[in-house]
Amino acid sequence: MSRLTIRIDFGPDTAFGPGKARLLELVDEKGSIRRAAASMGMSYRRAWLLLQDIEYLIGMPAVQTRTGGSHGGGTVLSARGRAMLERYRTIERRAARSVSADLTYLARLTGNARPRRKG
Amino acid sequence: MSRLTIRIDFGPDTAFGPGKARLLELVDEKGSIRRAAASMGMSYRRAWLLLQDIEYLIGMPAVQTRTGGSHGGGTVLSARGRAMLERYRTIERRAARSVSADLTYLARLTGNARPRRKG
Repeated sequence: MSRLTIRIDFGPDTAFGPGKARLLELVDEKGSIRRAAASMGMSYRRAWLLLQDIEYLIGMPAVQTRTGGSHGGGTVLSARGRAMLERYRTIERRAARSVSADLTYLARLTGNARPRRKG
Repeated sequence: MSRLTIRIDFGPDTAFGPGKARLLELVDEKGSIRRAAASMGMSYRRAWLLLQDIEYLIGMPAVQTRTGGSHGGGTVLSARGRAMLERYRTIERRAARSVSADLTYLARLTGNARPRRKG
């Protein structure tokens, strides 16, 4: 029911969280920065800036462009971009598992509150 | 070095994260919503709206005002407000501990990247 969202701060102005993770995932899935951005309702420029942030963070491009080939090329994750994404997903899973009893406690604490929503 | 920030989503538009936790902590410390807001660089109105959010979430006020007494009253956390805050801090600690090896891995992955910052 309740869900953790995790951001990792590596230093001032250097964070990795759900938005960047989702962007990498979608680039990987769609083979295109433009299509990934579109399916997040994000401008190409915004997506590109986020990828620049990730590049700065991991010290090399997070994505790479393959030209030609039987599928006409496309954009894929670099090995390090993929390592970052996968470790982030691991962290999400591990953290959620470690606090599942606490989330149950909070679900009980907050459980009767929801129906009282105004309007 | 790197640090987790955790948000808990209880449902649509119903989240608890570092800002609300800090606000509760500061109200508790300063005995005043106004002083807590000021020390977060936040308007009183914004702080009040966040406290309303928390009240909706936990089903009762997160803070209560004590009038009179030897210290002239002040605002304190309600029992449930305090339970929410403390469990959130527990979740932060437990989650961070559970992924400490992953954070070490990411620190190594990203470790050589920082000095290459443009400018």
